[in-house]
Amino acid sequence: MAPLTPRIVVPIDVKKRPWDQKLPLHNRWHPDIPPVADVIEGELFRVEMVDWTGGRIGDNYSAEDIKTIDTTITHYLSGPLRVLDAKGVPAKPGDLLVVEICNLGPLPGDEWGYTATFDRENGGGFLTDHFPCATKAIWYFEGIYAYSPNIPGVRFPGLTHPGIVGTAPSVELLQIWNEREKKLAETDVRLLKLCDVVHQRPLANLPTAKNCLLGKIKEGTPEWGKIANEAARTIPGRENGGNCDIKNLSRGSKVYLPVFVEGANLSTGDMHFSQGDGEVSFCGAIEMSGFLELKCEIIRGGMREYLTPMGPTPLHVNPIFEIGPVEPRFSEWLVFEGISVDEAGRQHFLDATVAYKHAVLNAIDYLSRFGYSKEQVYLLLSCCPCEGRISGIVDAPNAVATLAIPTSIFDQDIRPKSGKVPRGPQVVKRLPDVLRCTYDGALPITQNPCMDS
Amino acid sequence: MAPLTPRIVVPIDVKKRPWDQKLPLHNRWHPDIPPVADVIEGELFRVEMVDWTGGRIGDNYSAEDIKTIDTTITHYLSGPLRVLDAKGVPAKPGDLLVVEICNLGPLPGDEWGYTATFDRENGGGFLTDHFPCATKAIWYFEGIYAYSPNIPGVRFPGLTHPGIVGTAPSVELLQIWNEREKKLAETDVRLLKLCDVVHQRPLANLPTAKNCLLGKIKEGTPEWGKIANEAARTIPGRENGGNCDIKNLSRGSKVYLPVFVEGANLSTGDMHFSQGDGEVSFCGAIEMSGFLELKCEIIRGGMREYLTPMGPTPLHVNPIFEIGPVEPRFSEWLVFEGISVDEAGRQHFLDATVAYKHAVLNAIDYLSRFGYSKEQVYLLLSCCPCEGRISGIVDAPNAVATLAIPTSIFDQDIRPKSGKVPRGPQVVKRLPDVLRCTYDGALPITQNPCMDS
Amino acid sequence: MAPLTPRIVVPIDVKKRPWDQKLPLHNRWHPDIPPVADVIEGELFRVEMVDWTGGRIGDNYSAEDIKTIDTTITHYLSGPLRVLDAKGVPAKPGDLLVVEICNLGPLPGDEWGYTATFDRENGGGFLTDHFPCATKAIWYFEGIYAYSPNIPGVRFPGLTHPGIVGTAPSVELLQIWNEREKKLAETDVRLLKLCDVVHQRPLANLPTAKNCLLGKIKEGTPEWGKIANEAARTIPGRENGGNCDIKNLSRGSKVYLPVFVEGANLSTGDMHFSQGDGEVSFCGAIEMSGFLELKCEIIRGGMREYLTPMGPTPLHVNPIFEIGPVEPRFSEWLVFEGISVDEAGRQHFLDATVAYKHAVLNAIDYLSRFGYSKEQVYLLLSCCPCEGRISGIVDAPNAVATLAIPTSIFDQDIRPKSGKVPRGPQVVKRLPDVLRCTYDGALPITQNPCMDS
Amino acid sequence: MAPLTPRIVVPIDVKKRPWDQKLPLHNRWHPDIPPVADVIEGELFRVEMVDWTGGRIGDNYSAEDIKTIDTTITHYLSGPLRVLDAKGVPAKPGDLLVVEICNLGPLPGDEWGYTATFDRENGGGFLTDHFPCATKAIWYFEGIYAYSPNIPGVRFPGLTHPGIVGTAPSVELLQIWNEREKKLAETDVRLLKLCDVVHQRPLANLPTAKNCLLGKIKEGTPEWGKIANEAARTIPGRENGGNCDIKNLSRGSKVYLPVFVEGANLSTGDMHFSQGDGEVSFCGAIEMSGFLELKCEIIRGGMREYLTPMGPTPLHVNPIFEIGPVEPRFSEWLVFEGISVDEAGRQHFLDATVAYKHAVLNAIDYLSRFGYSKEQVYLLLSCCPCEGRISGIVDAPNAVATLAIPTSIFDQDIRPKSGKVPRGPQVVKRLPDVLRCTYDGALPITQNPCMDS
Repeated sequence: MAPLTPRIVVPIDVKKRPWDQKLPLHNRWHPDIPPVADVIEGELFRVEMVDWTGGRIGDNYSAEDIKTIDTTITHYLSGPLRVLDAKGVPAKPGDLLVVEICNLGPLPGDEWGYTATFDRENGGGFLTDHFPCATKAIWYFEGIYAYSPNIPGVRFPGLTHPGIVGTAPSVELLQIWNEREKKLAETDVRLLKLCDVVHQRPLANLPTAKNCLLGKIKEGTPEWGKIANEAARTIPGRENGGNCDIKNLSRGSKVYLPVFVEGANLSTGDMHFSQGDGEVSFCGAIEMSGFLELKCEIIRGGMREYLTPMGPTPLHVNPIFEIGPVEPRFSEWLVFEGISVDEAGRQHFLDATVAYKHAVLNAIDYLSRFGYSKEQVYLLLSCCPCEGRISGIVDAPNAVATLAIPTSIFDQDIRPKSGKVPRGPQVVKRLPDVLRCTYDGALPITQNPCMDS
Repeated sequence: MAPLTPRIVVPIDVKKRPWDQKLPLHNRWHPDIPPVADVIEGELFRVEMVDWTGGRIGDNYSAEDIKTIDTTITHYLSGPLRVLDAKGVPAKPGDLLVVEICNLGPLPGDEWGYTATFDRENGGGFLTDHFPCATKAIWYFEGIYAYSPNIPGVRFPGLTHPGIVGTAPSVELLQIWNEREKKLAETDVRLLKLCDVVHQRPLANLPTAKNCLLGKIKEGTPEWGKIANEAARTIPGRENGGNCDIKNLSRGSKVYLPVFVEGANLSTGDMHFSQGDGEVSFCGAIEMSGFLELKCEIIRGGMREYLTPMGPTPLHVNPIFEIGPVEPRFSEWLVFEGISVDEAGRQHFLDATVAYKHAVLNAIDYLSRFGYSKEQVYLLLSCCPCEGRISGIVDAPNAVATLAIPTSIFDQDIRPKSGKVPRGPQVVKRLPDVLRCTYDGALPITQNPCMDS
Repeated sequence: MAPLTPRIVVPIDVKKRPWDQKLPLHNRWHPDIPPVADVIEGELFRVEMVDWTGGRIGDNYSAEDIKTIDTTITHYLSGPLRVLDAKGVPAKPGDLLVVEICNLGPLPGDEWGYTATFDRENGGGFLTDHFPCATKAIWYFEGIYAYSPNIPGVRFPGLTHPGIVGTAPSVELLQIWNEREKKLAETDVRLLKLCDVVHQRPLANLPTAKNCLLGKIKEGTPEWGKIANEAARTIPGRENGGNCDIKNLSRGSKVYLPVFVEGANLSTGDMHFSQGDGEVSFCGAIEMSGFLELKCEIIRGGMREYLTPMGPTPLHVNPIFEIGPVEPRFSEWLVFEGISVDEAGRQHFLDATVAYKHAVLNAIDYLSRFGYSKEQVYLLLSCCPCEGRISGIVDAPNAVATLAIPTSIFDQDIRPKSGKVPRGPQVVKRLPDVLRCTYDGALPITQNPCMDS
Repeated sequence: MAPLTPRIVVPIDVKKRPWDQKLPLHNRWHPDIPPVADVIEGELFRVEMVDWTGGRIGDNYSAEDIKTIDTTITHYLSGPLRVLDAKGVPAKPGDLLVVEICNLGPLPGDEWGYTATFDRENGGGFLTDHFPCATKAIWYFEGIYAYSPNIPGVRFPGLTHPGIVGTAPSVELLQIWNEREKKLAETDVRLLKLCDVVHQRPLANLPTAKNCLLGKIKEGTPEWGKIANEAARTIPGRENGGNCDIKNLSRGSKVYLPVFVEGANLSTGDMHFSQGDGEVSFCGAIEMSGFLELKCEIIRGGMREYLTPMGPTPLHVNPIFEIGPVEPRFSEWLVFEGISVDEAGRQHFLDATVAYKHAVLNAIDYLSRFGYSKEQVYLLLSCCPCEGRISGIVDAPNAVATLAIPTSIFDQDIRPKSGKVPRGPQVVKRLPDVLRCTYDGALPITQNPCMDS
């Protein structure tokens, strides 16, 4: 007789705040955040997680909460978990930790989520120069499906995944991160060509003690102070995995993570009911609380065997992923393209980011002809199962990026056809639009010179 | 009784040179290149095409031909075709031209192709700083499958597509292209941050009369001289479609192209038996001659109805694509990740190109552990049906790009597992390696600081 | 704010017996079994279900429980549910009831199942003349995956579905069922040609009061007696849906059920973690307890509009199904074929049942060469996601049936290849075989005349 | 340098009659039909084929040709081919012949096909008691797509395949076939229960010299006479493969055929542009001429290693198939069900043939509500890529069979919905209906007792 159900290693009560959970959460990467539990190679265990804000965003019809949110809270993670082999020997630096995602989903009783953009002065998003206002859409789940009162006429099955799966960095790796990001943060944005096009700021989020939560380390102690000022923020994906936001990392997938500290110190969080490639609106997946059912394996010495460091030190590696066999099946895709020419008509050199920005802008304008506001489409393309590809990266000077949208998520036929653009019945109902705040900041907006005034 | 077989509109004899074909080819974009034939809305017609070099690359065991090729020949296209509606009225500027790809394939008797990299001093490729030598792999086709004597142990079904489908630009659009690309070409590469990482040169290929082929326009005439010095090169994809290299544009797909000149002047070429997203080695698909069976439809006034210009003029639009229902089915994928940190460990800001470069480098190093040379893998990832995704583009400072490789194309199991890396039987046979020239240039190579010396 | 979680309409406690559940279960079809709850069109609700035996089969290493089980208990169902529209008007005879399966799965804490065959004298199965012994395999679930200690070397994602979804029959329909099945049951098996090949008995299970459970109707009352002696057994699928065992009826699927009584009286049960087409071993899916999350819609007058009766009365209709978008993705299939020639070499006329029997026998013999016992393969093909097709039904005298098995469920490569049959490492471990009882009955076994003695 | 194109082993000129082809065709199975060519293990070769009638069915608007066709011509095959290994040693009885289908398609210049039913007195079809008239629909091909002027409003990609791939039987196997089929043919149909439901006749087609074509054996010689009177008809699939009509046997598939005579003597024919599971209308695929590109491998002694005889002799085996990776991708299916109750309301015992008949009848009636005649739907379901499944074969007394239809092949939305059945624009155009002859025979028609009169 096998155990019939996965052991709950990290329980979550969504009515409690992150620091009041039974096992304390953390929102930074640091080798000295102590493990909250042990897991054994081969056992099936369950980790529950709050949404990335720990419940600060409400199921309500206002975007004020997202407009003013303090992003130093990002992201509340469950763990770290110490991983041991069957004999009780912990994973060691140099090992490869295989994490299989056997199951996942929303937490029972909390089957909803939200997609949002930050105010441009509070972090913005990929298209913040076009869409500077904070916006929010609420999504409700009907089993595998999500629908939104704020974006009528769409319903799609979720390709649910954790935004964050990562191991703890070693002291040395943490130092590498802090140094390279500090250097970037101190760069004058006028020196970075891409900053003409990508207006999201800041360039990098450096360590800060503000809102720092460090698991079992008590706030205010000297240890807390030291760690809080060194610990890396969780926003970017890095060598340890972390916030990779790989939307296909769903049921049946595997992550092969490098181990940098004894025990691996695995943390997870930032559950997404669904996300589009790129997660363009930044708070852009369908963000939710949720659970993972995981199984770990340790490949001893696997970093050397399977990962080649690519950079100045042996720590400059990246995880590997294996995609699972259960994904929603779409057979028809409408594909929008962007090339590396920006809104001002300037030519960039093989810049996939610029090209992808244009592909997304093209898709937004196209879909807005079918009865949607542009803000609705921006949020939709951020969270629906659309695919963002680097189609061509060598045909100088143009990178070609594409955004492929499954047509069956819409209640209407969105393909071009002879005659006027038709508009589907659901949309005409004029259900409530996406929630939108005013933009009170001072940063300029990018106007499409060709847009109808 | 319907016509039983598509009308051959452009026939090709692969034994003849591009300028000796029955209907003359062209290798530039210009509104004044005259149509070679008419096609009627709704009819099924066949266009045959030479490979992009018009037969200059040989089915032989040497890469010398690719090393020294003059890239001003790029790309020999079939057309332009004037598109008329059923009443004989041509497509007009402002219309949308729908081109359905009903069928395609290699030309009978010419069922082979090649994948190559240029010498670094002759155009290079996405990773030219790592792989400066010209290389070539020959591929043979067995129906839907391709295999290479130069890259043993892999065989995969082709997702065959045309690299180039485009309409002729108007005078005004052509001028926009030439101006913006000239401006880029004149930029000091030291001012472009991305040039630290992407070493492919030149930044842009400007009009040149050298090797210019202009269809029915006779070389040496004043008209030829004028057009040759204005006509845009075919390397980058642009507003007219062109060299988009969208690898999924296979049987059953549709392209919605803007019409800029009367008749649309549709041209096609650069057939690919298969390509990976990004086409990283530059001459990177399985390049071949081939045929398309097409059907056109004209959506009158469709540009205004379906395409939003995004830029300074109403001509700043991009085509839309619809992907067909017949693609090879892969169920297991191994995914490599890159973040926007370069080989020197420098942090870049949300740069998807840098991130994708790292994802490809990671995949190359990984697969080279299974018995391949890195050059073999570089070519393989350029042409096999791998998917390049922009997974995260907002988690500052790191863009996350991924490269997903279908595992079933290999004869061996390439997934990480406990114990040493096994090596498959096919590979151990030590069949001939990829063809490789010496690199005699002077440009420096990027060394991975962590690589085994 | 929408309700965040589905309303639990029928709760189940797997530690209690079927008749002790909070809402009483039933195991017969009859119009007079009263509804246990109401559900409203459009609401998302949850129904929990015991396994078909109500917990009589144990998670243990013996097949004695399945050998001696009394099949008059079949199947314990949850419901009936009365379906009302938003105004409170119940579904009416002649309507079409649309039931969408938004989610489903095992019950938390009860993540296991079993696949079994009955003893030949106790119901047998499709191949009972070859495999007369009762057998049982236990399956454990790791999220989406199932594995069995009794059938090592296989692991597969479940295409989980309810075996039974049905509406209550009207008095008239019930009478039709009882009459036609009684007539069959009374037929001398020697008159039925197919009985030479299909040895499962009895021919039909007629109403019996034995083990009859009728929901709110108290056992022993006159009403109970009347209903128990009329009510149809739940084994076969019929006009009301019922035990259709359509293995693809998973998440996102819809059932369009005819309504025969006011309120529709919807019942569900017999949850399957996974099943192969045909469910050949009879107790042949991975049988489990579980839950459904459902949403109903009433199409008023839909029976007349969408269903054509095909038979003597307007009640001779069949439900329609729509398959959901989330299924495990398999790309490689090995296919076994059978023609309508039986084991004795006799030719049958276009008999798909005979052909399918041969396809299954061929597959069993083939797979048994890879280290399995035939009993293991029989159970495996009954519950793994294999596809049973009627490939040809007109090429007299042979029907051609095929059984397609996804190769990736095995740890070893099961395709034919040059040289001896290899045997995978997992299998060689010789883990415990499928649980098997003795056969003490008297019915003859079909011997394959060509089998090694 | 590899050969660039497959060697044409059997060329076909569709303007010539079967007996006038360069390499003579044959339409019977017999060990003494001499090979027309040799093929070598590993080489890629091309076999061209006439349609099964050798050009007797016209691309015209009359069904008279199919009504009166003499079915003793069935089927004109290309081959036999003698298969040798690389050393020139032929395949031997007991080997397994692996035939890989690398490519296939219609013959250039002959891109059309037809789907038909025979007159009830001339062979009928699966539903001949409902549809006794000969009918015909013409299909034209647009690359991967087929459309019919006779069945407007549908267009679908073909899953093209050969109906027939087989090896020659040995003398002993031929004798087994002839004996068992003769025995069946002599059975009084009143003794066969299934004959109450399946009215296709005759029960089996025995050897006849009429219209016999035997390749190189000259008609009228004593040898011809002997073979013609012994040779098996090609209609049913048998131990040697033959007319299996497995619709998924398309590009990239493999067939593992038993070898019964020296050289294997491989024959192919009966090309189908597309077929539904069951091929219900009998002449029911989209029948066409075409080509195969094949590659053979010999597994020495493979019959014993991989095939278990299941019957009285070691020759009672069946081939194995492996399905290729390139199939049209459909994501939405509407599924019709049948149970083993016939049109008269009689209960049959686990009879999958009866159940499938009902599933097809239900689908026909349903789809005829969307503007089609029943004859149109009968032909459509015979040739479109629909899936026929044996869903349940143990729930006595009802077998459950299902027919799943991909919804995207229709121009209109065919799913049930609230309100009246809508009817799509294409259908309303009232294009010409399916071609239909009068039925002048005397056999009774099955009337659906519930059908509108």
